[in-house]
Amino acid sequence: MKSIWIAAAVMASLAASPASAMKPVTIADQGSFMAGGTVVTAPGAYGGNTNPLNQAGQTLHGDHAYVFYQIPAQAHNTALVFLHGYGQSGKTWETTPDGRDGFQNIFLEKGYKTYIADQPRRGRAGRSTEPQAIGAVPDDQLWYNNFRIGQWPQKFDNVQVRDDAVWRDQFFRQMTPDTGAYDEAVISDAMKAVFGKAGDGVCITHSQGGGPGWRTAIKSSHVKGIIALEPGTFFFPEGQVPPVEETTSPFPAAGVGVPMDDFMKLTRIPVLVLYGGNIPAEQTPVWGLDNWRVRLNLAKAWVDAVNRCGGDATLIYLPDIGIYGNTHFLMSDLNNRDVADVMERWMKEKHFD
Amino acid sequence: MKSIWIAAAVMASLAASPASAMKPVTIADQGSFMAGGTVVTAPGAYGGNTNPLNQAGQTLHGDHAYVFYQIPAQAHNTALVFLHGYGQSGKTWETTPDGRDGFQNIFLEKGYKTYIADQPRRGRAGRSTEPQAIGAVPDDQLWYNNFRIGQWPQKFDNVQVRDDAVWRDQFFRQMTPDTGAYDEAVISDAMKAVFGKAGDGVCITHSQGGGPGWRTAIKSSHVKGIIALEPGTFFFPEGQVPPVEETTSPFPAAGVGVPMDDFMKLTRIPVLVLYGGNIPAEQTPVWGLDNWRVRLNLAKAWVDAVNRCGGDATLIYLPDIGIYGNTHFLMSDLNNRDVADVMERWMKEKHFD
Repeated sequence: MKSIWIAAAVMASLAASPASAMKPVTIADQGSFMAGGTVVTAPGAYGGNTNPLNQAGQTLHGDHAYVFYQIPAQAHNTALVFLHGYGQSGKTWETTPDGRDGFQNIFLEKGYKTYIADQPRRGRAGRSTEPQAIGAVPDDQLWYNNFRIGQWPQKFDNVQVRDDAVWRDQFFRQMTPDTGAYDEAVISDAMKAVFGKAGDGVCITHSQGGGPGWRTAIKSSHVKGIIALEPGTFFFPEGQVPPVEETTSPFPAAGVGVPMDDFMKLTRIPVLVLYGGNIPAEQTPVWGLDNWRVRLNLAKAWVDAVNRCGGDATLIYLPDIGIYGNTHFLMSDLNNRDVADVMERWMKEKHFD
Repeated sequence: MKSIWIAAAVMASLAASPASAMKPVTIADQGSFMAGGTVVTAPGAYGGNTNPLNQAGQTLHGDHAYVFYQIPAQAHNTALVFLHGYGQSGKTWETTPDGRDGFQNIFLEKGYKTYIADQPRRGRAGRSTEPQAIGAVPDDQLWYNNFRIGQWPQKFDNVQVRDDAVWRDQFFRQMTPDTGAYDEAVISDAMKAVFGKAGDGVCITHSQGGGPGWRTAIKSSHVKGIIALEPGTFFFPEGQVPPVEETTSPFPAAGVGVPMDDFMKLTRIPVLVLYGGNIPAEQTPVWGLDNWRVRLNLAKAWVDAVNRCGGDATLIYLPDIGIYGNTHFLMSDLNNRDVADVMERWMKEKHFD
């Protein structure tokens, strides 16, 4: 067993290293794996050995998740499993668009095992059991607005992003398409398999990943807590789903009704829900903001519903605790270390280790 | 600057860590970025602030590469930039299908800076400026055969893979589709941008990545050497492309003609070409083997052409140096550390550092 020791002089020189300014971290183990998924078989008898282009009887292994994991030396016991949102991959948690450390590096430095997924039919987990037509539709500005960066081309005054040419280029290029239909059951099945390999941990979701996050917690007892960053939806007991609130956004916030047994599972683990800044209290024609007003309202209703049934759900609207200007992308905003500290403080309060 | 020191007792306990058996490595810096790419703009005047679904005037940033990089403490100067092959992503270089260290970890332990790319229109670099229809066509066995694992369902006797259920599951799931048409110019433009960020280094390609590898070396003076693992094609001076050899494979091996100036660039940097085992000398109806017979022949012709013009190209057929049974996936075979050692030995001979 060889170890790598760093002389003080080298360490001092590393202090001048550019870009992310990550502190050196000793990685005990790292790697990647595919988790879950299914197999489809083409009908007919296999004949590919003599006729290579004959697909009869051949298989397709698809609908799995891809995970890259890193285990720092002397890691906390609790695994952190990260699930991205709409149009993103695991990249969403990596280096920020302006070249700073993302949550991957930040939580690694804090001593956590990190498991960063690409959901089925996305990114490196692109092999899908369903065909898909991908358009090449220009819509960068739709997302710029919807992610509360600003109103194109003008960022909001206090917003926590550089929004310069480099930032925009990297931010827009993070987006990557579905290679098969979005399917929450497929995703949560794969994420259950991810937790099967990662062990007990906290499921950290973003945006559209929120729904599969709730479902994964329902399916897997390895999910000991959830941190949902600006989730897009919430699970209520069937028959208790709040009415869909009117909004100027093209994306209304609808709750999802689930069997009571499933809902009650979400009352048995600690849950933290975070929303960032610039979310208005009143309806606004600025649809990219109104989109989040209705989600924050739904979040309040959900936290109440969970806690009424004996749960442990905490909702934090970051400006309420003095953290201002966050966009939908809390994990990569300029003050992302503050956001990570809020998350870690909560994890320590809940005694995950 | 904080450093993390590992007590001997912890190191000893880490020796028992499962799975990949990676030695702990101190990472000075790691992260990811998108490199290169283009922007397309929808015609018309932008109106998305009031009408969110109006795509007029919106942009699409696409056709970039995704890169995950790691810089170990006290790294060699030479960057290693890895470009995967057909149907693969950067995963191809990561943990092997049977859970051992891949080239990412192996070369990291050897002290190299590693830059692992997803090419444009693949994996996490899925945002494409061209639309794409993705079929869900079962063809695992086509690739099992074509990658010289065996003749489905029977692996070859001496082959360097486990080929058990776990291996097969992980191996097949590594495949991920194109999200836009395969385009060597698009790929090599992005890889040139990758080298622009990585600095001087060796371009390590696999299979279909070979073509873009040659082209990247032609475009970028940062490419100081090439290691091509079982490349699918070779660049010859226009008018000097060898005739396409007859084969039982559905994938004939055609050389590519390029302007003499471009070809000569490939004579000015050291090049190593590796092929693995089980490649027959005579034509065979086993098309998955014949596929590589004609490529190995083309490799010989190419190395001769390069060296005749003053180049420094080395071709190694691994059984010739006592390394047997390798499949097309040298980087993840059971003896991948031996393959990595061959590569490192060559790099040291060529004095890259």
